[in-house]
Amino acid sequence: MFKPTIMQPSPLTAAPTIAQIQQRHEAIVSYIHRTPVLTAQSINDISGAELYFKCENFQKIGAFKMRGGISAALTLSKEELAKGIATHSSGNHAQAIAMSAKLLGVPAYIVMPNNSPKVKVKAVEGYGAQVTFSESTQASRESTLEKIIAANGAHFIHPYDNYDVICGQATCAKELIEDVPTILDAIIAPIGGGGLMSGTCLSTTYFSPQTKIYGGEPKAVDDAFRSLQSGTLQQNKTTNTIADGLKTNLSDKTFSIIKDHLTEAFTVEEEEIVAAMRLIWERMKIIIEPSCAVPLAVILKHRKVFEGKRVGVILTGGNVDLEQLPFTKN
Amino acid sequence: MFKPTIMQPSPLTAAPTIAQIQQRHEAIVSYIHRTPVLTAQSINDISGAELYFKCENFQKIGAFKMRGGISAALTLSKEELAKGIATHSSGNHAQAIAMSAKLLGVPAYIVMPNNSPKVKVKAVEGYGAQVTFSESTQASRESTLEKIIAANGAHFIHPYDNYDVICGQATCAKELIEDVPTILDAIIAPIGGGGLMSGTCLSTTYFSPQTKIYGGEPKAVDDAFRSLQSGTLQQNKTTNTIADGLKTNLSDKTFSIIKDHLTEAFTVEEEEIVAAMRLIWERMKIIIEPSCAVPLAVILKHRKVFEGKRVGVILTGGNVDLEQLPFTKN
Repeated sequence: MFKPTIMQPSPLTAAPTIAQIQQRHEAIVSYIHRTPVLTAQSINDISGAELYFKCENFQKIGAFKMRGGISAALTLSKEELAKGIATHSSGNHAQAIAMSAKLLGVPAYIVMPNNSPKVKVKAVEGYGAQVTFSESTQASRESTLEKIIAANGAHFIHPYDNYDVICGQATCAKELIEDVPTILDAIIAPIGGGGLMSGTCLSTTYFSPQTKIYGGEPKAVDDAFRSLQSGTLQQNKTTNTIADGLKTNLSDKTFSIIKDHLTEAFTVEEEEIVAAMRLIWERMKIIIEPSCAVPLAVILKHRKVFEGKRVGVILTGGNVDLEQLPFTKN
Repeated sequence: MFKPTIMQPSPLTAAPTIAQIQQRHEAIVSYIHRTPVLTAQSINDISGAELYFKCENFQKIGAFKMRGGISAALTLSKEELAKGIATHSSGNHAQAIAMSAKLLGVPAYIVMPNNSPKVKVKAVEGYGAQVTFSESTQASRESTLEKIIAANGAHFIHPYDNYDVICGQATCAKELIEDVPTILDAIIAPIGGGGLMSGTCLSTTYFSPQTKIYGGEPKAVDDAFRSLQSGTLQQNKTTNTIADGLKTNLSDKTFSIIKDHLTEAFTVEEEEIVAAMRLIWERMKIIIEPSCAVPLAVILKHRKVFEGKRVGVILTGGNVDLEQLPFTKN
């Protein structure tokens, strides 16, 4: 059978076009899972909406970050790859870079803050990456990474302020749109650094232009909400949220895309996040992170916006510490 | 399009034949979910086996018991059904009978011990069933149920000592065999009262005769293991296990089928059950009950039996109390 050769993708210098997302999806497809879209009658009944959950908790490394990591890695030349890929992260992006390097057979260098949970350090090391500890400050993380890169020439892959990462994350909404047997009235994703949200904005605009695009954010880290309100990039004042994947701030690249395409951003309280998380665990029997309960919390809180609508909900990941769950005893 | 009429199934008076299981599957198919079969590369790597997990945690009411409940209910005449269906149970069978009655539009009467977890009582009531509390002893449960049945003529559906229930549970292994893209070397299920295990024995013998059939039991409630060793029905001496669905004893009907077909039964310790449960939660991102971690615990403990084999594993349910999880803090 004729099988077209997949060209090595070139690094992007601007927000990806529709063709670039399509080509990138072909390039990464053998490195990622096509995750299922699940429905849950009882949550439809509770919300009054028809929800389609895109389950990136079943993605490789347990989160959508795999898409962006491998997408960026594949743009590197053989010579660049041989020197390895690197990042600083205590979360899913660290695992995505480690796994991408493993699949490509190249070294990975991950800087992790010295207060990272042991379980996350073990996961990254389990993929064969070399972990270097830094202080937990942003400055220490960056300077530690710079030293490693200076020493071995590894290529830094930023978790979201990177058009190739955004292009990879865009494949998630693309698959959701392709796999849902109806035209969606809306798609909703959580907003952290904005890599997933900006990719979701682009794919929805390209592949389902009539679909509205919503973002959800914890009230405690509402930089995106305030940035959109004010029109200029705002910073989070705290990182005091259970949604550990959403503590980061938008970047220039992600804010630029999101402000042009997002229909609206909503914020939710911590207890609303936990309640939505629990609902998904109990009714769907799947494990999701607090971060990806934010969209359902938004849907339940802003019932009038979503009632009677067909809504795609991106469940971003399932990496939780089972010893630290928020379901307190009665 | 021609659509053959599905005949109302007649109540069974002996272990179901291959044709009876096929016909019953057709009769119940619109009342149940065809649950997915999932694989997990990392658990394959750890176990050394190729595992196919049949996910009955995604079944209606969150457990395989839905199959047996609706299977038995459908054998009743309109007149019998109008009087309602009844059982005593604090677990998934109670929910299955309540849901079956709801789907058929008839009353359900459930006797629950007065120490049943509130969350389970609420779930049963949520399906519209009428709950009556008894003392927690078997004698009180049975006498309370007898009074209800005497008063209203409802039909008692036993959780497992019932060939129609067994016939319904048999459809689970039938689907697993049909949906796995290979011939299985073995199928393994947990053994409680033996309804699922005896159904699994029959379907595997009928539809995949070359496949070995294994059962898993907590050591603390090893009545099946001892019954098979001695050749006569034994009783549990304690109910001291985390696997709350497996505390019951085999019955005459289930023991008779299991002793004729089971290849071997294995027992596992409590901490091995918790470790296997945690492995499935962490690696597969799905929520399963302790009871259905028993087969994976067996596979990990008896590596030589399963290594290199293609093994179907029945995950029986996902109804856990999120406030009472066994993952203790370090």
